[in-house]
Amino acid sequence: MEVMNRYITIKNHVNGAPQESDFELKSSPLSLSLDPDSDEVIVQNLYVSIDPYQLNRMKSYSSSQERSTYAVAFTPGEAIDTYGVGKVVASGNPKFEKGDIVAGLLHWGEFTVVKPGGMLNKLDPMGFPLSYHVGILGFSGLTAYAGFYEICKPKKGEKVFVSAALGSVGNLVGQFAKALGCYVVGSAGSKEKVALLKEKLGFDDAFNYREETDLNSTIKRYFPDGIDIYFDNVGGDMQAAAVSNMNINGRVAVCGVISEYTDGKKRAAPDMMDIIYKRIKMQGFLSGDYFNLFGDFLSTTCDHLWSGKIQPLEDISDGVESIPSAFFNLFRGQNIGKKMVKVAQH
Amino acid sequence: MEVMNRYITIKNHVNGAPQESDFELKSSPLSLSLDPDSDEVIVQNLYVSIDPYQLNRMKSYSSSQERSTYAVAFTPGEAIDTYGVGKVVASGNPKFEKGDIVAGLLHWGEFTVVKPGGMLNKLDPMGFPLSYHVGILGFSGLTAYAGFYEICKPKKGEKVFVSAALGSVGNLVGQFAKALGCYVVGSAGSKEKVALLKEKLGFDDAFNYREETDLNSTIKRYFPDGIDIYFDNVGGDMQAAAVSNMNINGRVAVCGVISEYTDGKKRAAPDMMDIIYKRIKMQGFLSGDYFNLFGDFLSTTCDHLWSGKIQPLEDISDGVESIPSAFFNLFRGQNIGKKMVKVAQH
Repeated sequence: MEVMNRYITIKNHVNGAPQESDFELKSSPLSLSLDPDSDEVIVQNLYVSIDPYQLNRMKSYSSSQERSTYAVAFTPGEAIDTYGVGKVVASGNPKFEKGDIVAGLLHWGEFTVVKPGGMLNKLDPMGFPLSYHVGILGFSGLTAYAGFYEICKPKKGEKVFVSAALGSVGNLVGQFAKALGCYVVGSAGSKEKVALLKEKLGFDDAFNYREETDLNSTIKRYFPDGIDIYFDNVGGDMQAAAVSNMNINGRVAVCGVISEYTDGKKRAAPDMMDIIYKRIKMQGFLSGDYFNLFGDFLSTTCDHLWSGKIQPLEDISDGVESIPSAFFNLFRGQNIGKKMVKVAQH
Repeated sequence: MEVMNRYITIKNHVNGAPQESDFELKSSPLSLSLDPDSDEVIVQNLYVSIDPYQLNRMKSYSSSQERSTYAVAFTPGEAIDTYGVGKVVASGNPKFEKGDIVAGLLHWGEFTVVKPGGMLNKLDPMGFPLSYHVGILGFSGLTAYAGFYEICKPKKGEKVFVSAALGSVGNLVGQFAKALGCYVVGSAGSKEKVALLKEKLGFDDAFNYREETDLNSTIKRYFPDGIDIYFDNVGGDMQAAAVSNMNINGRVAVCGVISEYTDGKKRAAPDMMDIIYKRIKMQGFLSGDYFNLFGDFLSTTCDHLWSGKIQPLEDISDGVESIPSAFFNLFRGQNIGKKMVKVAQH
């Protein structure tokens, strides 16, 4: 049996803010039969993740930068990797059989041919919707969990500031922090988002950074006793303002710097005098280093979901053709929570 | 008995680079007799430390900045605290008696009246010159030791970059790193300093940053395989260039930012994308948090001194009147190693 596989590619390397015109919907025939010894698996993608960091793999880098720092760049015209959940439609790998629900590294497209050694695992949905396993119980959740617990080492009662607090990771960090008994304030880019943070997600307070002219004073207003933990998803001026409002032994988890992704010249310039005198630790991290925590993360998060202490915040678009706009709208602040695309009905 | 105590004060809060005209040599009569119940101790200062960070206490800050971050500012006209070694000339404290050699928080002056609760300890010189106990076996040494071992967690064979590598702390970090078996490169501000680093202190390599126009390329030249540990004494562009040349899991100990002390608007702007993708930890610290390590530090450093693995690098001026120039010359890069002033003959 052969199907037409529609998938998204970039036409060229993307520099600056991504545009509709950077993307292309391609289609190519795909045979759904596999050699039983191929070790390959063909997955019909159900939900695929849409993440800001993917922009960094769309940029053109010098080979030395790429080697030393960033994940390998995407090649224009080829399928784009993403985390996702799907259903096995053909398997040449004895670990999987047709009909299995799986999670792993898929493509922005309708089908993924997972090569031998590709990241793919059978998924037990544990009674939750499959979309949860792309967001709150997937990589975004692990990122929030590892960044908050491992990097920030939070204590009950500490004061936590989260930027891009309605983003896929930020909203969970805030909810984990509230579940632990921290005081939590988030920043976001609209009145509606601020209302959601306070009313739906239980943040102690929140503000719309677009309405503020002096972030330093704004943060001081929300943290008269200073910040103990800053979970940074944006970089730039917000980071500098947060650092200047931090307490002694403050911790900054540098998870994302979305304000800098689209403008390579933009830089956060935290005051190093603060870093020294307040003994601040600033630490970058990638969730991929914390797979060893996946079991703990999953059981903690499921417990919180069952008890209602935390809730998923999902923003789901439909159909492979909606992937480009789902993606470039991330950089326009248009997502509310975890952005993903439902590619096919389960 | 009464003496004239000559001491250095600031005339006003200092902002920007310190100048000769910011300082004043004052003298006032001091009675060397103390009430036996006073708990006070009068110390004749022998060697006093001259440190860049003292400039930060000479600045004027808002009270909230001071409270939340920096040590209390010095008051113009009053004596200036510093670490030093001296001799007890009168004691109202049963723990000390006349003639004791002591180390602790003294003043930039000829005598210090140490108040009850002031930091003062009897000193066992262990056969070393007293000046060693101000530098290599004093606070500068502890700063280098704690910053290198505790913050950077070095491993044999790692690649270490030290800025202001002939400074009081930098030269020791480099020597500790060499003693551990690391590859060590330092930056300094003159040909002579570069020669000293390589020939006298055993650094693997060194460069004169004043001769370089593109620090990023310069550092890449000295670290073709990247930096594992950057011990930052300068901040600014050097920090940004070091971060962009770091390896995965790199560590930056932020010990001092001398390039920013004299210009509050100058800021280091490390690339946060590097911080994330290379999981870099950047940590500020103050040696005062590591008194618990003093015993370990002292025994390790003495061992290295006895075996000749490390050596002190001291830059000693004579007489209380030389303190201001000793200090402001720090910011002109004129010291070679630990700067101190010998105030009186032992």
